[in-house]
Amino acid sequence: MLCGLMKLYDMVKAPNPRRVRIFLAEKGIDVERQEVDIPSGQNRQPDYLTRVRRGVVPALELDDGTIIDESIAICRYFEALQPDPPLFGSDPLGIARIESWQRRIEFDGMINVAAIFRNTAPHFAERAAPGAAPNTAQIPAMAERGLSLLPGFWSLLDEQLADTPFIAGPNFSVADITGLVTVDFAKWVKQRIPDDAPNVQRWYEQVSARPSATA
Amino acid sequence: MLCGLMKLYDMVKAPNPRRVRIFLAEKGIDVERQEVDIPSGQNRQPDYLTRVRRGVVPALELDDGTIIDESIAICRYFEALQPDPPLFGSDPLGIARIESWQRRIEFDGMINVAAIFRNTAPHFAERAAPGAAPNTAQIPAMAERGLSLLPGFWSLLDEQLADTPFIAGPNFSVADITGLVTVDFAKWVKQRIPDDAPNVQRWYEQVSARPSATA
Repeated sequence: MLCGLMKLYDMVKAPNPRRVRIFLAEKGIDVERQEVDIPSGQNRQPDYLTRVRRGVVPALELDDGTIIDESIAICRYFEALQPDPPLFGSDPLGIARIESWQRRIEFDGMINVAAIFRNTAPHFAERAAPGAAPNTAQIPAMAERGLSLLPGFWSLLDEQLADTPFIAGPNFSVADITGLVTVDFAKWVKQRIPDDAPNVQRWYEQVSARPSATA
Repeated sequence: MLCGLMKLYDMVKAPNPRRVRIFLAEKGIDVERQEVDIPSGQNRQPDYLTRVRRGVVPALELDDGTIIDESIAICRYFEALQPDPPLFGSDPLGIARIESWQRRIEFDGMINVAAIFRNTAPHFAERAAPGAAPNTAQIPAMAERGLSLLPGFWSLLDEQLADTPFIAGPNFSVADITGLVTVDFAKWVKQRIPDDAPNVQRWYEQVSARPSATA
């Protein structure tokens, strides 16, 4: 499926846009993309903010100018347009499990990695809050808190993956996409899957080998 | 609809469980509830953690012991069981708009209010991270950051509500539930809808008057 009348504001290196690109690759959907460089502040320039009020990336622009931001909202738009393969579940329990895991990974994993990164990376020294937020100083203690909470995330995920091939059950889902992106994002702050999480390692090798992982 | 073979772990005063209760009230669904007192640490006791691994509230326990945590995942479970009235949208654009706003309110509003509250409330002095996370000291600078980011949230919401009766469009949705709960949660940290956000005030009065708001 080619969606020619929309545009995805993207940044190839950043974790959140990658969630959308992997999702689109799993669906076999092509969308026009425009690169936005966050480190140099391109997402805070007037021409971008005129389109994308919150200054976040990714954002999907529809042909009438409507903006959908938030990676998961963009993914849900495409899930509704093209339900197969279902990546958000198809029965009530499957839907709930996937949403539960997708959010657990965000709140226990991704947010902690982001807290470490945004509060330590030199080019975000005055931009520790994302998007169009006012200039915000880094808080080193937030990075330390993120580091102290990550072990709990790895063990939660490892327990789950002892019982299931994919994070939310027998099938690949958006929870695996958030998980994969979180593991790779963690490398930015020198955090890797610990040795005592072999189930996470097995799963990570498997999902990394899918063609969509290079999207 | 009465769902008798499941149980909702709830806390009447807390914001996240209230999201689920309002959602259920809008759907006309009754579920057995069990109160869990977070301030006294009941959610960190072994008997709760045996059931709800992350120690979070709310959590939904199904008749086979399956746990669904994360408020929005619980809401999605009930949306799939009983689609009417649709609170997560029904067409691709409506679904995407609701999810986009639901997450904008969480990330720009609710998380900042929570950052203020968890990093200042005396009874969370050593429990600044939620659920079963290890003891975590409060970070006063996080509360200050939350305070500095909230004005951007009010203005984002006010701009949107200048154009629409409800947050994500013409119909009441889960985005309004997250919004309502965020406004009331903000009062805990002495933050109120500012005078220069009349559209938020109009919307708040309207959604607060719905019978579900007392759930």
